[in-house]
Amino acid sequence: MKAEEMSRCDLEKFKSDAQKQYDEYKSMGLKLNMARGKPGAEQIALSLPMLDCLNSANAEEFEDEYFNYGLMEGPDAVKEFFAPMLGVPKENLIVFGNSSLNVMYDTVARCWNFGVTKGSKPWKDCNKVKWLCPVPGYDRHFAITELFGIEMINVPMHDDGPDMDMIERLVSEDESIKGIWCVPMYANPTGVTYSDEVVKRFASLKPKVEDFRIFWDNAYCIHHLTDTPDKLLNLFDELKKNGAEDMVYMFASTSKVTFPGSGVAMMAASKANLEQVRATMTIQTIGHDKLNMLRHVRFFGSYENMLTHMQKHRAILEPRFNAVTDALERELGELGLGSWVKPNGGYFVSFDSIPGCAKRIVSLCAAAGVTMTNAGATYPYGKDPKDSNIRIAPTFPSTEELKKAMEVFTCAVKLASAEKLLECRSNEMLAKNA
Amino acid sequence: MKAEEMSRCDLEKFKSDAQKQYDEYKSMGLKLNMARGKPGAEQIALSLPMLDCLNSANAEEFEDEYFNYGLMEGPDAVKEFFAPMLGVPKENLIVFGNSSLNVMYDTVARCWNFGVTKGSKPWKDCNKVKWLCPVPGYDRHFAITELFGIEMINVPMHDDGPDMDMIERLVSEDESIKGIWCVPMYANPTGVTYSDEVVKRFASLKPKVEDFRIFWDNAYCIHHLTDTPDKLLNLFDELKKNGAEDMVYMFASTSKVTFPGSGVAMMAASKANLEQVRATMTIQTIGHDKLNMLRHVRFFGSYENMLTHMQKHRAILEPRFNAVTDALERELGELGLGSWVKPNGGYFVSFDSIPGCAKRIVSLCAAAGVTMTNAGATYPYGKDPKDSNIRIAPTFPSTEELKKAMEVFTCAVKLASAEKLLECRSNEMLAKNA
Repeated sequence: MKAEEMSRCDLEKFKSDAQKQYDEYKSMGLKLNMARGKPGAEQIALSLPMLDCLNSANAEEFEDEYFNYGLMEGPDAVKEFFAPMLGVPKENLIVFGNSSLNVMYDTVARCWNFGVTKGSKPWKDCNKVKWLCPVPGYDRHFAITELFGIEMINVPMHDDGPDMDMIERLVSEDESIKGIWCVPMYANPTGVTYSDEVVKRFASLKPKVEDFRIFWDNAYCIHHLTDTPDKLLNLFDELKKNGAEDMVYMFASTSKVTFPGSGVAMMAASKANLEQVRATMTIQTIGHDKLNMLRHVRFFGSYENMLTHMQKHRAILEPRFNAVTDALERELGELGLGSWVKPNGGYFVSFDSIPGCAKRIVSLCAAAGVTMTNAGATYPYGKDPKDSNIRIAPTFPSTEELKKAMEVFTCAVKLASAEKLLECRSNEMLAKNA
Repeated sequence: MKAEEMSRCDLEKFKSDAQKQYDEYKSMGLKLNMARGKPGAEQIALSLPMLDCLNSANAEEFEDEYFNYGLMEGPDAVKEFFAPMLGVPKENLIVFGNSSLNVMYDTVARCWNFGVTKGSKPWKDCNKVKWLCPVPGYDRHFAITELFGIEMINVPMHDDGPDMDMIERLVSEDESIKGIWCVPMYANPTGVTYSDEVVKRFASLKPKVEDFRIFWDNAYCIHHLTDTPDKLLNLFDELKKNGAEDMVYMFASTSKVTFPGSGVAMMAASKANLEQVRATMTIQTIGHDKLNMLRHVRFFGSYENMLTHMQKHRAILEPRFNAVTDALERELGELGLGSWVKPNGGYFVSFDSIPGCAKRIVSLCAAAGVTMTNAGATYPYGKDPKDSNIRIAPTFPSTEELKKAMEVFTCAVKLASAEKLLECRSNEMLAKNA
């Protein structure tokens, strides 16, 4: 029976049962964490042999210049290896250090201080800079644009990607809109992969200004969780067909392929865009760690082997994702207390409670020793207008821990939802009597 | 006999001899490079065993979190290991990625966009920003400030450091001066180490503005080339005595200790300064490569062992530096054609030709297959007002190559100097006759 349809009396009973159960959990002194999109220890172990791939005995097989300064864009063999990850010719790829977030930050900062291409106005000198943010989205994207004082506009996410009607209208009308954050595959946190139609509409955007850029963070491009993975149309190819390949910056990394702190990040862009990247990058740094790049290439040997390696991640992660969605279905499904989708890949399950409950749920979880991502974190400025989205990160805890954490979480959802529903009924009563 | 004192006739003869010798070199099809401050292959080999320090067999000895996200400032053990390099408590140190240049760039960019501390005016919003540049200095420092449109002011270098009278006067008078580039030990390129007196005067600076910062790039702090190394007073300690430790950012790296592209960079600063670093760094990146930090700590074991390792570099480098200064002394000493100092450490020999010859010398070398750092590179905007400074980088070529390259170089100095001296005499004659 849906909780909404319960009588007041049944709802009171439901709430008091949930409260009793919650108090029990609270007394257990749990310490569980579903906040962080971090690979777990088993996943880390998969890549430990990579540490052996480059050693003093085989160092002679590598070019001297790999150990020295230079090769700013990464050795050619490394570019060739990683180009398929973003689906671009190696000429359109630059390989960076260990953090794609850092590459994205630097890209925003470069446009901000020096303009998107040579001669274009730095964004800092524009009257106003605005940004489109499909929501719910990735908090660390939003933190970058917030830091620069860029005004963020929420764009609703649908099952096939962000609301393209809204995006098309806004970018064609508003000259202050300079960018959009996208996680086009297994989006953080919704798990949605943009449909071919959506990608084509991105490729056909007619922004009012030449320096509008799509920040295409393909963080989970090879992070599948099923036998029938989603497929993402190649935006770079689509843009090329329209002669508009300057409109996108693409990003990816191996942070969740090998080691989160010691992976390899990359960026793909058009010739004109990369020229501006080079112009500042060569002043900003002496280059990135080429030995770590080579460790990766040597470890995998081929792009296909890297995809096989991802199957091992999947084997570890799939039971964890199942533990989350099974618990949601079992405990909340019939009650209609929230909605979620089982993703085909990525790192998160996005949960939407009934409106006005997310903060309360997260705080109940915290008091019972279960740390969740802050409610609101998936929205710009940390403000979820409906107070309903919670990002569940199933990767880091063990499956056992996760099952326990999900018991607490679903219990907190029940309790917070019952409180909210009863509050609404009281308000309705008061309104009727007034 | 000094070339200046030669008769016109002797000078003509001297020039034609130099020309003859130069033409011979030119016909040899040489390909030698003294431009780059790059460690050579022998030096690289010293650190190859570091690659074995972290492997799949010993990975269990390391904390799980070293492999994952987090520990933004570097693991505690790493901070403790590197703190003595800049001579600060580990609480004042943050360990970064592979490039201290990148840390310096980011530091300028942070002040530029967000101000030196919370609440202080971003430099980009100041009417004018100026910078003091001891000259000759490091071209890549100057490139950063030039990129941000910061006006650079040349400050002469003396034997004991930059001209402190000028610095004291300018920073106390001009509110637009926000920073100064310093390489306080074995300066690039002069090799000068700042005297105690100079460091103390830095510590006692009374800048007109609170957001003036000393960028103290201690790149060569352990890069000695003699048994009696220079000693540098600790600026951080001296500033503390004056309650002025906010005035400095200190930088160092292991780029020339282990691998130039795969070293570890660090920054030391006061509590207040580091708070602002953290505030933006946590948005900019997911952190730096902790495994590479641990590789370093494991390889050396102790700070003392790292100093011993530097003795091995010295053994490789000292003959190279001797080859340079011996050739200069032998070929140019008596002739008085230029000046130089044999440095006690660092990576360069700074050569000053008689005025107006540097460009010609470098271009003569290039035409004979010997690549030198561009004349002017050691000055802001690439403009050496006297056209006399040339940075010689003896580290990368073999000693044999270096000897040949120095033959060509000194020959080019002779030829260019003779041309210049004859030109001056002609001009004097013309002036007399006019």
